[in-house]
Amino acid sequence: MSASTRIPPIAQPFVSDRAKKTLDLVEEFVEKDCVPADAVFSAQLGEGEKRWQTTPAIMEELKAKAKKLGLWNMFLPKNHFKQGAGFSNVEYGLMAELLGKSKIASEATNNAAPDTGNMEVLAKYGNEAQKQQWLVPLLEGKIRSAFLMTEPDVASSDATNIELDIRREGNEYVLNGSKWWSSGAGDPRCKIYLVMGKSDPNNRDTYRQQSVVLVAADTPGVTIHRMLHVYGYDDAPHGHGHISFKNVRIPISNMVLGEGRGFEIIQGRLGPGRIHHAMRTIGAAEKALEWLIARVNDDRKQTFGKPLSAHGVILEWIAKSRIEVDAARLIVLNAAIKIDQGDAKSALKEIAQAKVLVPQTALTIIDRAVQAYGAAGVCQDTPLAYLWAGIRTLRIADGPDEVHLQQLGRRENNARKEAVTAKLKWQQAESDRLLIASGFKAKSHL
Amino acid sequence: MSASTRIPPIAQPFVSDRAKKTLDLVEEFVEKDCVPADAVFSAQLGEGEKRWQTTPAIMEELKAKAKKLGLWNMFLPKNHFKQGAGFSNVEYGLMAELLGKSKIASEATNNAAPDTGNMEVLAKYGNEAQKQQWLVPLLEGKIRSAFLMTEPDVASSDATNIELDIRREGNEYVLNGSKWWSSGAGDPRCKIYLVMGKSDPNNRDTYRQQSVVLVAADTPGVTIHRMLHVYGYDDAPHGHGHISFKNVRIPISNMVLGEGRGFEIIQGRLGPGRIHHAMRTIGAAEKALEWLIARVNDDRKQTFGKPLSAHGVILEWIAKSRIEVDAARLIVLNAAIKIDQGDAKSALKEIAQAKVLVPQTALTIIDRAVQAYGAAGVCQDTPLAYLWAGIRTLRIADGPDEVHLQQLGRRENNARKEAVTAKLKWQQAESDRLLIASGFKAKSHL
Amino acid sequence: MSASTRIPPIAQPFVSDRAKKTLDLVEEFVEKDCVPADAVFSAQLGEGEKRWQTTPAIMEELKAKAKKLGLWNMFLPKNHFKQGAGFSNVEYGLMAELLGKSKIASEATNNAAPDTGNMEVLAKYGNEAQKQQWLVPLLEGKIRSAFLMTEPDVASSDATNIELDIRREGNEYVLNGSKWWSSGAGDPRCKIYLVMGKSDPNNRDTYRQQSVVLVAADTPGVTIHRMLHVYGYDDAPHGHGHISFKNVRIPISNMVLGEGRGFEIIQGRLGPGRIHHAMRTIGAAEKALEWLIARVNDDRKQTFGKPLSAHGVILEWIAKSRIEVDAARLIVLNAAIKIDQGDAKSALKEIAQAKVLVPQTALTIIDRAVQAYGAAGVCQDTPLAYLWAGIRTLRIADGPDEVHLQQLGRRENNARKEAVTAKLKWQQAESDRLLIASGFKAKSHL
Amino acid sequence: MSASTRIPPIAQPFVSDRAKKTLDLVEEFVEKDCVPADAVFSAQLGEGEKRWQTTPAIMEELKAKAKKLGLWNMFLPKNHFKQGAGFSNVEYGLMAELLGKSKIASEATNNAAPDTGNMEVLAKYGNEAQKQQWLVPLLEGKIRSAFLMTEPDVASSDATNIELDIRREGNEYVLNGSKWWSSGAGDPRCKIYLVMGKSDPNNRDTYRQQSVVLVAADTPGVTIHRMLHVYGYDDAPHGHGHISFKNVRIPISNMVLGEGRGFEIIQGRLGPGRIHHAMRTIGAAEKALEWLIARVNDDRKQTFGKPLSAHGVILEWIAKSRIEVDAARLIVLNAAIKIDQGDAKSALKEIAQAKVLVPQTALTIIDRAVQAYGAAGVCQDTPLAYLWAGIRTLRIADGPDEVHLQQLGRRENNARKEAVTAKLKWQQAESDRLLIASGFKAKSHL
Repeated sequence: MSASTRIPPIAQPFVSDRAKKTLDLVEEFVEKDCVPADAVFSAQLGEGEKRWQTTPAIMEELKAKAKKLGLWNMFLPKNHFKQGAGFSNVEYGLMAELLGKSKIASEATNNAAPDTGNMEVLAKYGNEAQKQQWLVPLLEGKIRSAFLMTEPDVASSDATNIELDIRREGNEYVLNGSKWWSSGAGDPRCKIYLVMGKSDPNNRDTYRQQSVVLVAADTPGVTIHRMLHVYGYDDAPHGHGHISFKNVRIPISNMVLGEGRGFEIIQGRLGPGRIHHAMRTIGAAEKALEWLIARVNDDRKQTFGKPLSAHGVILEWIAKSRIEVDAARLIVLNAAIKIDQGDAKSALKEIAQAKVLVPQTALTIIDRAVQAYGAAGVCQDTPLAYLWAGIRTLRIADGPDEVHLQQLGRRENNARKEAVTAKLKWQQAESDRLLIASGFKAKSHL
Repeated sequence: MSASTRIPPIAQPFVSDRAKKTLDLVEEFVEKDCVPADAVFSAQLGEGEKRWQTTPAIMEELKAKAKKLGLWNMFLPKNHFKQGAGFSNVEYGLMAELLGKSKIASEATNNAAPDTGNMEVLAKYGNEAQKQQWLVPLLEGKIRSAFLMTEPDVASSDATNIELDIRREGNEYVLNGSKWWSSGAGDPRCKIYLVMGKSDPNNRDTYRQQSVVLVAADTPGVTIHRMLHVYGYDDAPHGHGHISFKNVRIPISNMVLGEGRGFEIIQGRLGPGRIHHAMRTIGAAEKALEWLIARVNDDRKQTFGKPLSAHGVILEWIAKSRIEVDAARLIVLNAAIKIDQGDAKSALKEIAQAKVLVPQTALTIIDRAVQAYGAAGVCQDTPLAYLWAGIRTLRIADGPDEVHLQQLGRRENNARKEAVTAKLKWQQAESDRLLIASGFKAKSHL
Repeated sequence: MSASTRIPPIAQPFVSDRAKKTLDLVEEFVEKDCVPADAVFSAQLGEGEKRWQTTPAIMEELKAKAKKLGLWNMFLPKNHFKQGAGFSNVEYGLMAELLGKSKIASEATNNAAPDTGNMEVLAKYGNEAQKQQWLVPLLEGKIRSAFLMTEPDVASSDATNIELDIRREGNEYVLNGSKWWSSGAGDPRCKIYLVMGKSDPNNRDTYRQQSVVLVAADTPGVTIHRMLHVYGYDDAPHGHGHISFKNVRIPISNMVLGEGRGFEIIQGRLGPGRIHHAMRTIGAAEKALEWLIARVNDDRKQTFGKPLSAHGVILEWIAKSRIEVDAARLIVLNAAIKIDQGDAKSALKEIAQAKVLVPQTALTIIDRAVQAYGAAGVCQDTPLAYLWAGIRTLRIADGPDEVHLQQLGRRENNARKEAVTAKLKWQQAESDRLLIASGFKAKSHL
Repeated sequence: MSASTRIPPIAQPFVSDRAKKTLDLVEEFVEKDCVPADAVFSAQLGEGEKRWQTTPAIMEELKAKAKKLGLWNMFLPKNHFKQGAGFSNVEYGLMAELLGKSKIASEATNNAAPDTGNMEVLAKYGNEAQKQQWLVPLLEGKIRSAFLMTEPDVASSDATNIELDIRREGNEYVLNGSKWWSSGAGDPRCKIYLVMGKSDPNNRDTYRQQSVVLVAADTPGVTIHRMLHVYGYDDAPHGHGHISFKNVRIPISNMVLGEGRGFEIIQGRLGPGRIHHAMRTIGAAEKALEWLIARVNDDRKQTFGKPLSAHGVILEWIAKSRIEVDAARLIVLNAAIKIDQGDAKSALKEIAQAKVLVPQTALTIIDRAVQAYGAAGVCQDTPLAYLWAGIRTLRIADGPDEVHLQQLGRRENNARKEAVTAKLKWQQAESDRLLIASGFKAKSHL
């Protein structure tokens, strides 16, 4: 059963025939070319320090093949840009699920974060010069990029806390401050940073204090101090950098969209990006389920006289995983469709639902697979431990679950409290009216 | 925002304009007519024993109004029957969600279980005489019915255990045995039982031993011994009967479809019925969320100087409830669409997902609402405790969660184990081939 | 294995030989006399309205037997009162666990709430006249009592919200207001109410506005409006009353302890009471586990060819229940010991832990038993549904879980934040000192 | 408040004054000497390959200090051995909790796994020559050891699956096979392996096929192929080895206890070891809670205008963590006391409870702390991610949770099913007798 036939019935009307064909091509490319190449990528990367200076040859081979197959830049949504492959968010979402099954497939098809979000920003908000200089090579997969927002000294889950100073001096901006979790900054091909900072810290509107500027990675005053680990993984060569800015000078032409428009930019950037992350995570969960099934049917791994798949507890894991991942996928696809029909802003609720539900679901499923494998599950012999660690960060990145739940709860509460209260009160009054009309007495109400 | 505008974007293509109009009419009828009448129904029912002999007048008034509005028999799926309102399962599912918000709305529109399933059986499998005698008055809402399957002496979660004896003697069948949880048998208007029993207990095929026969409620030898409670509720006048059959004689013309075809009948009956239950349960969860929101914004119920809605824990409840009920709804709608596109058999997996996920989700949400109300939540002053108790039985009825999870898990495992194992093995071999070709050694594999 | 041999090893040093002997006697009395009599009590109570006027004869027979066995008033802690049986809180706690296995055992041994708490209040805070008039007949089991605190119009989870007006007029107090969830008020033998209200609503200290007064049940102006249900159960003849006070006049000699000391009284009352509730709930959980075990080994209830106990999922339920109930019991016993070694105030943390942990644990275990029984689990044929409903209220009564968790969390946080922060900072500084001394550079810290 | 004053009241009678003094000394040593030295240990270890050849100087300094303080070999239980410090399992358990707060404290006091279990085996089952050669230097902390049981090719969670071949040839045993997860094998000071294998694979008693033999680490034919990772961590220099045995020859005097007694040995070894692991894990959970508290009160990390500790959700995390860790600790202490009063075999149930409950509890609490830290929680700037990964393996090591739950459930079920069933039946019969004697009819029973 190919990927296009596995699309949930409810989502079928939203997927064009062209997208279905591409989807099947993506599956073939991921399962036959990319997944087997994952280990080659690691081997070519080598050991120790040089992992940060290497670009494995296999990646360029896969990129060439992907381009030839037309599997390139599928993430760029059709309704906004001519540069992309012309798919809707829901169509690309289904492809992203498949890309999520390999460590290298997203980059091999130029659909890898954070480049995708950065390309969107440049395509949407960049001026022509900025596009020429940075968007074109990014779209061609010649360079890579990073988005620098999180800071070590503040609680970045509240983005108004961000402190990096952007001060204008003549025709230049001067940047001072620190960033960390600058993902992708480790790659030797990472040439450009999109940096969020405060250009107007005294603006009364706390959502107009921030700007996003472009900083070439080799600008004097920029120092990558160290790479952060995720559990025990350092994610070389990509990496998560801790970077300082000391009197870093950039031309004013590197401002994106305009001073004070930083929030606008990150909000536009996050919607589709969350769909991508969520669908790749769905793919990781499906991959974990496949590994689980392979294990529990492995005849060499019998316990107490029967294969693991004959144990009721294991079958329950499979069944629950099936239900949970299918429910989570529908939540994401529904959010993608909402974006496709309007924009990310109109789909805030749906996107937040996907942002919160999907990582927790996937972590549960992956952890079941780890447990089914026993010791093999936590080590380098399965993809499970690494998948788990990476997805664990998604409960934190772009705002922790708790912040999203508070916002979602508050929005739902505020939007509905008056109407709901009025309706229940009216129903109670009407009920009393009917009771009295029927010869009974009114009910006592809370 | 009317009900039709709240249909999830992903489900919109499956709902016709006519269904949307009806959906909005259903909402109006439920919220304005039925919910306020719930208390009147209870009041007219009275107290004690007479609750089992009464038919509250308000019900007939509502039925008349529903018929006039065209809100009648919406459950009968369009692709099978001319007697119904001509909606698909997904369209009626959305209506059932709304019906689930009132205790009496389903009956008021002639969409109440177990009549719905029984009408489907008669429409699909009954002969003309059976239809004339029982289906017609059921479709008109003149009589009610019960489906007698579960037995007190065996574990009915495995339906092959059923023991009620159906023995042919001349032109009659003679029935002996016991049934319980015969829901609806308490109603004075309940005239007909569909009874599952064993007509061929020695058949080697354990799925051909059973038959379904029609038994008029007043047939000699039928005794209702007592009514079973659900937590402290007896659900009068509907009720859940414990019934014995002692030499009950029925004409052989009362056999449905043919001897030995009982399993076939119950399987065809359960698919859409599970969608109905699931969607009504979604409606109950939404109702609980409404009550929760009303409570936490009630200024008289402040604690520690602020309304409950200002507490972060409460906002998290609202947010999680929003996510969980929306995910569960999509699972049900997807299953309904799968039935609409094929039949219940082709949608076994999707129906099982809905069967397991929805009641657990709704119970969690209702329990949060109970907790928000405190003491008021467990008593008769809110609909919450009663909703909880009723939905708790759905984790048991038609097979406990655990049986469905085992089947779902086994089906998934068996369907995929060979392909998945082969794929992973091929990928590892291919990976080794690539590694060796690149000058590395093969990985050790599990 | 008798009850005294099942005491967890860690608790053994706290249980005297006399208490062990009594414990075994309690077990014998509960399992052999009370549990079989539960159904007789219900039968003697009858049906409908008269259940509120009846005192089943079996109760008086059991009380006579209990007295003869010396099983009377065991709840009164030894370090405070001469009227009791002379046991510590932990010793009585172990007995309360056994009492929790029967609906009627607590009353049969005069250890039933709310009388126990009310007797403690009178013994600790009552003057001689009050003791003579009310405590003596309560200790003898001749009358019963209620504690009226919760009110329908405010959020009583914050007890400063309580509004019932206590106004002094000459030698009388005049009471006006409403109470609900006045448990025990339904019993025809309930003669005395302890009523919490506001005697000084303008006192700046919000914890000095309240008083507790004694009100004879038959005082003019007192009206029981209705009985509240708990998931459909009305708990007759005990009941949960909704009561109004309209110019109810009582002599000033009915003030307990003194005006403005209401909070002091309820705090002293709640500590041991929570231990009693918690241990009875532990007993209920053990009872549910026994019923579960009986069911899953019932040969008539096989599914898919094997008894339920051969299913791995069921064995996991048993194992988890065993772990959870044992952990919860240790938490309660530890709290009881803390009270025994000091007082309830010094054991606030430990009591709150028991208050929150035990009901949730028991509900989980009971719900597993319900599920194992299927339809029988939710109805009157097992004790499970009724146990569940009663214990569900314990997550609300005396403050909902959420309030206790907030207080417990805040107390832990406030008590430790300074010391913990200082320690971690010192350790980081010391670590840096050592690193530098060893020729390395200091770590960067958060 | 020193450690000895924080002992739960219920456990106080089991802790001698000498143990309390030692406990406070341990706390001082761990918090003031070891925790600050953790980073020094890592720094001295260095980078890359040489981490496997290095013995950081700080460790020997700490060991010298620990010996001087008398903090040495506290794990050896007093009732069995003269070589130890003379503490009971519950006393040492409380110390182990404190040791669990530092990466290096266990080794610094010679209480580190797997040496502890190996020393117990040698002390209990070794002959004099074996003791002289291996136990003496282990007790002195001069060498280290490994226990080789798990194998890559079988499901080791069922230990009868173990395949390593031990064949006698003259005065030697010849070993062939593979082991992995040989923890500690990476340490350059690891000189001795205790190896479990099959010396009599055809024995009908599947629990008599196994033997444990001593293999010097430098025996020809022993090859360490690679080190296994735990969520990206390689735990150098300790490490988890994948080791092959190819015609490895050892003298027959290296047999421990006797051929076929392997199961006996591992069972004796596991009981106290599980207590040690569990209590260190409790310590890790407490450490995570301290870090959480420090974070949520960090004024630089405010969100939405208030410190994290002002958010209700965070306070609930603290409260739940407090309850859960306290309950888990009591379960472990109760198990330790049961061992102290008898032996590990008599405490199977209690040990299994601790084995299952503690890691899950700790993982939940650590994960909350990770979430409170956000990005800092998953990286090297807090101890949280590393603690989590290490403890995650405890749900697998020495048998996965699921195996222990099955055994615990089966044991509980089998031990109780007859008595419970008989009791419930007797109670129902007695109840019927009473009902009939009182003029009612008997109840219908399931």
